[in-house]
Amino acid sequence: MIVNTPKPPYYAVIFSSMREEKDDGYEEMANEVLELASSQEGFLGMESARSEMGISVSYWDSLDSIKKWSENSRHAFAKQMGKEHFYEAFRTRISKVEKEY
Amino acid sequence: MIVNTPKPPYYAVIFSSMREEKDDGYEEMANEVLELASSQEGFLGMESARSEMGISVSYWDSLDSIKKWSENSRHAFAKQMGKEHFYEAFRTRISKVEKEY
Repeated sequence: MIVNTPKPPYYAVIFSSMREEKDDGYEEMANEVLELASSQEGFLGMESARSEMGISVSYWDSLDSIKKWSENSRHAFAKQMGKEHFYEAFRTRISKVEKEY
Repeated sequence: MIVNTPKPPYYAVIFSSMREEKDDGYEEMANEVLELASSQEGFLGMESARSEMGISVSYWDSLDSIKKWSENSRHAFAKQMGKEHFYEAFRTRISKVEKEY
């Protein structure tokens, strides 16, 4: 669902990935990470879509909230799993949303 | 495919949408718009995925390039079509990419 974000400025973490379809526990971990992110301070919501590639955009109130989330140990484990097992390629972009319409 | 963007800063236009699957000329117009965007000055690339919702992120070298693209008349027509026919809901966010890894 489209996230009902507040008036800018706020932050968006754009995570783009390529992965092969296989039953490797990815879905379970992705759901767990989303649930965990949702409980973090400053989390505003997440949008995700996957077809040939995957794009997930999470929205945050500040760079500080993003930093804290990036240091969460379960999140760090999931990132390591992603790097080693789930993704053929991925890129993370941290951006400041300046305008929304 | 994941876009091989340059070193930040640069800009990302995050376009999130909900639409019903139907044969209404959407795919043709989406392809035309992507091709047209690709020929614009300052366009760095686009990433797209669609499952329950659609997310397209286009990357640009400057706000000025985004502004020029937003004023392109064929693009304006496609946006009007999107508003009236293709999408149940959508949101556009203009953001400045500050960090990438």
